[in-house]
Amino acid sequence: MQLKDYVTNVPDFPKEGIQFKDITPLIADGQALRYAVKKLSNYARDKEVDLVVGPDARGFIFGTPIAVELGVGFIPVRKPGKLPRETYTESFNLEYDQASLSLHKDDIKAGQRVLIVDDLLATGGTIEATIRLVEKAGGNVVGIAFLIELAALKGKNKISNYPVFSLLTY
Amino acid sequence: MQLKDYVTNVPDFPKEGIQFKDITPLIADGQALRYAVKKLSNYARDKEVDLVVGPDARGFIFGTPIAVELGVGFIPVRKPGKLPRETYTESFNLEYDQASLSLHKDDIKAGQRVLIVDDLLATGGTIEATIRLVEKAGGNVVGIAFLIELAALKGKNKISNYPVFSLLTY
Repeated sequence: MQLKDYVTNVPDFPKEGIQFKDITPLIADGQALRYAVKKLSNYARDKEVDLVVGPDARGFIFGTPIAVELGVGFIPVRKPGKLPRETYTESFNLEYDQASLSLHKDDIKAGQRVLIVDDLLATGGTIEATIRLVEKAGGNVVGIAFLIELAALKGKNKISNYPVFSLLTY
Repeated sequence: MQLKDYVTNVPDFPKEGIQFKDITPLIADGQALRYAVKKLSNYARDKEVDLVVGPDARGFIFGTPIAVELGVGFIPVRKPGKLPRETYTESFNLEYDQASLSLHKDDIKAGQRVLIVDDLLATGGTIEATIRLVEKAGGNVVGIAFLIELAALKGKNKISNYPVFSLLTY
């Protein structure tokens, strides 16, 4: 299955100069969605994952079905003010913005094996903050899976200490 | 399986007087998550669903795995400015806020059978806006599935013309 056929390039979104990879046609297609979820889950199958963690909001799109496929729980990392119990919070720079992310303090137990899932690796800011949150909570990041890596933005350099898998690379 | 054992009540969140139903313990448990996804999918299995639609961001958490389970695509309804192509937008009142939601104009084809999924039915504002967006795009709402219905808030009255299923009612 040629998944790249389902990814659209939208120039100048969300602002000038950004080439936005629109994955909505891929997730709108039942076969493409299922194929991508299977492939990303297969990457993690031998890693004895205890939990899948995904950042708000597009990390939820692949994170939950991968957790269901692996038979483990899913932990959302969210924008501040969205999680109701006590959280850790980390700030970071995005490709075209600044942001913070939070994680419930008690959602991960010390030593639990965590797979982080997101749709896209760009400059790596979101995923670095997610790693810091997981490690603050005591989790052990055993893998990071992306649907798409934008290689030119070199986000992978920031997470070179972790096993990383990207289904599609541009 | 007693799913209610995995839902926590957080008083006065996000503001005083609101009893917040925290579903993160449920989705953090692999068995509870899988059970909930199966039950919600079973509700829709005889409805010949073409697409699952879920609102940003917690609608993604159950929407995508249900789409995968049913073998159909998932369409995200998002906060304005997040979807890169041309959208319809609808504004609405929340239980404790005001908000808008957008849908790509070409994500649904005329007559497609749509299952809407969200985690929680409170006053019904989010889901009413989602229905309006789906119908503007030409979709046919054949079912609406919630993990939780807060019956006292009477959101169901707003969507009484549609088949509605809630896995848990409070």
